[in-house]
Amino acid sequence: MNAIGTSVPRLEDERLLLGRGRFHDGVIRPGQLWMRVVRSPVAHGRIRGVDTSAAERLPGVVSVITSADLVGMPRIPVRQPAPGMDFTPYLQAPLATGFVRYVGDPVAAVLADDPYVAEDAAELVALDIEELPVALDARSAADLELECFGGHRAEVGIIEFGYGEVDEVFAGAAHVVSTNLRVGRHSGTPLEPRGLVAEWDDRAERMTIWGATKVPYFNRRVAAQMIGLPEHRIHMLETDAGGSFGVRGEFYPEDLLVPYLCFRTRRPVKWSEDRAEHFVAANHARQQEHDIELAFDEDHRLLGLRNEAWLDNGGYIRTHGAVVAVLTASMMSGPYRLPACRSRVHIVTTNKTPIGTYRAPGRYQHNFVREHALDVAATQLGADPVELRRRNLLDATEFPHRRAIHIFGSPMVLDGKDHLEHFDKALASSEYQAWREQARAARESGRLVGTGCAFILEKAGLGYDSAIVDVDTTGAVRVAMGGANVGQGIETVMAQITAEEFDVPAESVKVVLSDTDILPDGSGTFASRTTVVGGTAVKQAAEAVVRKARRVAGVLLGADPEELRVEGGTLFAPGDPDKRLTLAEIARVCFTPAHLRNGEEPGLIGRSTYVADGMTYPYGAHFAQAEIDPGTGQVRLLRYAITYEIGRAVHPQLVRQQILGGAVQGIGGALFEEFRYSERGEPQSITLNDYRWPRASDIPEIRLDVFEDSPAPGNPLGVRGAGEGGTAGAGAAVANAVRDALQLTGDVGALPLHPERVKELLRRRDGGDADRPARDA
Amino acid sequence: MNAIGTSVPRLEDERLLLGRGRFHDGVIRPGQLWMRVVRSPVAHGRIRGVDTSAAERLPGVVSVITSADLVGMPRIPVRQPAPGMDFTPYLQAPLATGFVRYVGDPVAAVLADDPYVAEDAAELVALDIEELPVALDARSAADLELECFGGHRAEVGIIEFGYGEVDEVFAGAAHVVSTNLRVGRHSGTPLEPRGLVAEWDDRAERMTIWGATKVPYFNRRVAAQMIGLPEHRIHMLETDAGGSFGVRGEFYPEDLLVPYLCFRTRRPVKWSEDRAEHFVAANHARQQEHDIELAFDEDHRLLGLRNEAWLDNGGYIRTHGAVVAVLTASMMSGPYRLPACRSRVHIVTTNKTPIGTYRAPGRYQHNFVREHALDVAATQLGADPVELRRRNLLDATEFPHRRAIHIFGSPMVLDGKDHLEHFDKALASSEYQAWREQARAARESGRLVGTGCAFILEKAGLGYDSAIVDVDTTGAVRVAMGGANVGQGIETVMAQITAEEFDVPAESVKVVLSDTDILPDGSGTFASRTTVVGGTAVKQAAEAVVRKARRVAGVLLGADPEELRVEGGTLFAPGDPDKRLTLAEIARVCFTPAHLRNGEEPGLIGRSTYVADGMTYPYGAHFAQAEIDPGTGQVRLLRYAITYEIGRAVHPQLVRQQILGGAVQGIGGALFEEFRYSERGEPQSITLNDYRWPRASDIPEIRLDVFEDSPAPGNPLGVRGAGEGGTAGAGAAVANAVRDALQLTGDVGALPLHPERVKELLRRRDGGDADRPARDA
Repeated sequence: MNAIGTSVPRLEDERLLLGRGRFHDGVIRPGQLWMRVVRSPVAHGRIRGVDTSAAERLPGVVSVITSADLVGMPRIPVRQPAPGMDFTPYLQAPLATGFVRYVGDPVAAVLADDPYVAEDAAELVALDIEELPVALDARSAADLELECFGGHRAEVGIIEFGYGEVDEVFAGAAHVVSTNLRVGRHSGTPLEPRGLVAEWDDRAERMTIWGATKVPYFNRRVAAQMIGLPEHRIHMLETDAGGSFGVRGEFYPEDLLVPYLCFRTRRPVKWSEDRAEHFVAANHARQQEHDIELAFDEDHRLLGLRNEAWLDNGGYIRTHGAVVAVLTASMMSGPYRLPACRSRVHIVTTNKTPIGTYRAPGRYQHNFVREHALDVAATQLGADPVELRRRNLLDATEFPHRRAIHIFGSPMVLDGKDHLEHFDKALASSEYQAWREQARAARESGRLVGTGCAFILEKAGLGYDSAIVDVDTTGAVRVAMGGANVGQGIETVMAQITAEEFDVPAESVKVVLSDTDILPDGSGTFASRTTVVGGTAVKQAAEAVVRKARRVAGVLLGADPEELRVEGGTLFAPGDPDKRLTLAEIARVCFTPAHLRNGEEPGLIGRSTYVADGMTYPYGAHFAQAEIDPGTGQVRLLRYAITYEIGRAVHPQLVRQQILGGAVQGIGGALFEEFRYSERGEPQSITLNDYRWPRASDIPEIRLDVFEDSPAPGNPLGVRGAGEGGTAGAGAAVANAVRDALQLTGDVGALPLHPERVKELLRRRDGGDADRPARDA
Repeated sequence: MNAIGTSVPRLEDERLLLGRGRFHDGVIRPGQLWMRVVRSPVAHGRIRGVDTSAAERLPGVVSVITSADLVGMPRIPVRQPAPGMDFTPYLQAPLATGFVRYVGDPVAAVLADDPYVAEDAAELVALDIEELPVALDARSAADLELECFGGHRAEVGIIEFGYGEVDEVFAGAAHVVSTNLRVGRHSGTPLEPRGLVAEWDDRAERMTIWGATKVPYFNRRVAAQMIGLPEHRIHMLETDAGGSFGVRGEFYPEDLLVPYLCFRTRRPVKWSEDRAEHFVAANHARQQEHDIELAFDEDHRLLGLRNEAWLDNGGYIRTHGAVVAVLTASMMSGPYRLPACRSRVHIVTTNKTPIGTYRAPGRYQHNFVREHALDVAATQLGADPVELRRRNLLDATEFPHRRAIHIFGSPMVLDGKDHLEHFDKALASSEYQAWREQARAARESGRLVGTGCAFILEKAGLGYDSAIVDVDTTGAVRVAMGGANVGQGIETVMAQITAEEFDVPAESVKVVLSDTDILPDGSGTFASRTTVVGGTAVKQAAEAVVRKARRVAGVLLGADPEELRVEGGTLFAPGDPDKRLTLAEIARVCFTPAHLRNGEEPGLIGRSTYVADGMTYPYGAHFAQAEIDPGTGQVRLLRYAITYEIGRAVHPQLVRQQILGGAVQGIGGALFEEFRYSERGEPQSITLNDYRWPRASDIPEIRLDVFEDSPAPGNPLGVRGAGEGGTAGAGAAVANAVRDALQLTGDVGALPLHPERVKELLRRRDGGDADRPARDA
């Protein structure tokens, strides 16, 4: 019944297809109130007054709160502290206190009997805000001293990673290639905006919250601590979600406001984000500017990398803290033989929506910047970009490859195998050299066709997770773990991992995710960690059940527990096929006096906590072929291919879908998606007409080859994360293809490569200018 | 902060006094349907047909089901199997199949939009039942072969316990005293009748059930297995309850019908028992007839005991199986030096409501029968009843005292100390000898005043239980265990046990009872076991938390974990009062990488399962002084006293209240309460006018002395059970007082001693007849 490695039907689908999914907006509690957030229309300003009286008078309004109601409440903390960095002055309060820092900053919250009254009332809240100068460019804003942050600088701090004698290497290098690159501001923008429902139970003196999807245990902890409630008094229940991508489910101001208002009124409170709100309220991502330099010897061997980057963090430091900067800076060293590296990222606040983590945070950036710089270097060195990569990729002799860097407390050990071999396989399977030939031929015929490739380094499998596997007296198997269902098929995968141990069909396993009553602690779903870490915890919990089942069945069957064979949920003694016990039979016996043990939980239940030693580093390659319309500047992707080393695919089809979906999002950020702002800091992309999602017609068929050549040595499943590799390389491959199509000698300057920007690249190239466009905000 | 041993304010009271309790009837789910049970009006009959068509046509009726809808469903199983006894033919189906066995036997269930329609529709269900002869007396019915049980005999089986050469002892005895005694049919009759609400969740594909109070985990298991659902798909949630007394919360037909109808309709289903229904549907109890013989030597030393009893089990074997018979038969040996004993109980089905366990099951009977026979013996031997007891009670040299008997798989070891000393203390504290003098004086003045005493043997602390104690990052302490809140103050007691370990106030501890999501398994609240077994599990779980807190704090404070002092929820290193960490601080640290361990649950959480070795045997004495109105036959209690060895009182006030409340119930069964039947088996006591509860004016002030002289050696708390000792001796003491008041030479014949029966005793005594009344049904 080999469950792992089989693309079984998704457990989630029956529910979703029959309309029995439960999304936050489908949670309707008797007597529920609706919350509406009053947001700042000003990007930076001093709050002189908030007049809620007209709103409060509107029939149906139950309550209007401002920061005055939250005096003494701590600000929203970071989830992963960065050693040595104090975020305190930069943290966001649930409702703006004294100052507003971006358009969309919550200033007040209205609670009313229905959503329409709430929205009307929100418009009656009169904000008196004195506008202050706005900062919209991180690099130039770094030194500003800001009154709203108690005089602290806009630059929160600098994250630096490095090793080797970088400056010496550069001084002695045969070739140094420098460039300046920018990644645009885009984000997850899931199909279903965010939302929460909280309900107070007067008997149990506790609250149930629906809608926290990413890190429910962390969110419970923060809400409890901020409100001043025991954690036990908050019960998080799983919901379905229309996409997450790292954006949904962080602890946002609304994640405090909804439970706070519920606790204050003891009534159910619901909040459902609208699209325009989502575009200013939910975390933005990505926006960084990089100065990157590569040093080579005469044989085009990489000697060193220097990177100085500015991360446009937006108005406050949110829960991610410095994670994006850490992942950018630390992983800039990439998949290559690199004797020396210094990589710094300045975290700078500006007057835009705060940023957070979005699928492949940091890796979208570092892969784009390094891989695009390599292409620029190839041109400047007169080398072939493919060969330049082949020369420098780590090969079989170099693994495991330890960088003299610690990330999140663990040493950075690239745990894959032969990256060069992977690249060669990728070149073959993608037929990339043929694409290059075709592009060359097309260019010769006057078309603007080019190709680009990128070798990417990813990471996955962070932290720890717990799981419970329980076989009840009916033989039913339930697994509880701390991830979240955000559309990725996690229920199916966890069921497969469990089913494998019992040799039962995956569909017979019930999966419960992040129910804080059933499982006391969990780490959530982010950073491609759920299968790696949570899946391992699940496997170990299932193994514990099998161990106990063997012990009990061994006694009953008079057999050596280790010699029992587990087949189809039944344990067979050797020799006699009638000497067998089903899991249900064993479970029933476990509750009888003879099989109870002091200190051991009754029944067939297993618990596990798995603490990952460090991360695992998947890797892969992206290939693009693009054509540019010289009239409009529009980039059309003709071909796209991805290879990815997954270690082991629990559900191959889900791995493919994750990677393909991720690639579409990566392409979106490479070509289309951008949050733009006016000079006054007013967001210009608050509808889906302005914020351009990729469409089906924008995406060519993507050839995807998933390799299982290098099982991750750090976990017993051998899995590497699959969630972000499709995204991480798209910016690089697309930019390289556009650059090739335009036959630039320099870089493309910035992502996304929307028509406006491509036309400027064309103009500058054809005008003989330096082929980089001017900087824009 | 010595929490244990202090009568702290009850944690339950704020909720209950403020109207925030949640009783089953307060659970109102959107769209809920109401169930009404159609019951047999016939005590014994063959079902020829059930016509539901008129009921189904009534507007508002959703569904009407009969046994035809439940074909293939197993019958309701017993909870504690009796080795060697096959109950299968006698088990009750959720809806009567083929035959009805008592008035009230469920035949159909109606589901409707509101309770009034449901009740109207139930009356439209036409039952065609052919009446069969009824059996209302267990002893004479034993040999009947019953078609409804497939030709099996009405006698289900015989429970026998014994040791020693009984018949030889009797043959050689100087004195043999024989008597025949009957205990009436009465039961728990809590203030709040039973009820259940079940709701199906389409997303989670599971059901929540409110209202299962006694053994929720067992009930979940049975409901799951009968319906064919995984146990995990049923979530039991705690409710408050207006009394339980062993009667509420067993698995009754309704405990299947409500979840079954909920699962079938996928809609919330509610059922709320009315009083008349309760009197025929909920378990009856007690009714037994005993032939008991005592053998003495010339010095009035007990040599042997022979007991043959018939238990009137009613229509079916319900979940208790043979428990009442086992406890009657095994414990008949009592607290005395008894070289030989044979005790048999015939379990016989009749055409009345099935019986079950009710506060002090078996012990009310064995203590009454033995202690009353001792008084008869005293008269016949010319001995003083107090001295006869003193001569035969086990003394200091004889403990622990092992009877050559196993109960529920464990040896019967009386684990108290010097029973004689207890009795002497009891005589002194109750001033019983003075009562006797007063009674004698009163009798001399022509009044019918008498006194009676009884030394009782109780038992408690059966089985196993699990608990979880969790200290969250706010420092809040939560304990989850598998008992039920039935008014006894269990939340307070569990909070105290937990608080003791952390040296925090009990009121700061949140207690969660039998939430099947939070705690996967629990044994429930019955048999005075919750504090003994559940409390020990709680203590051990709290100890586990303290151990982890010591370990983590030891590292952080640089101190030997064992040397840390726990005071007020804070751990102090020796020497420096500033070297300290609160539990909240330690909990937060437990989630950081340095303190996570593979395989160990994150956080400050402790789990424990405690498996009791055997039972503990509390003991005590009851004393009564009664006066009889010669005109009406009414018995008036003038004085009452109880002493009880509790081992250790966690909450002395609750112990007192349990014992006093129990005594009132015991007195109710001794004087007032009786389910009576017509010759056709029609119940005559289906209102509180007919079924006579004791009233405040019936009960004198009860003097209660709780001793803590003999901590139970079998559990670390040293506690013995407190729930049933007040009940167990009341029948004996009251009967002995009535007998003394009437100066009978024989026995009183039967309980309850209601006026009718006492008048007959008076008539027979004064008429010179043998002073036993004729037998009645």
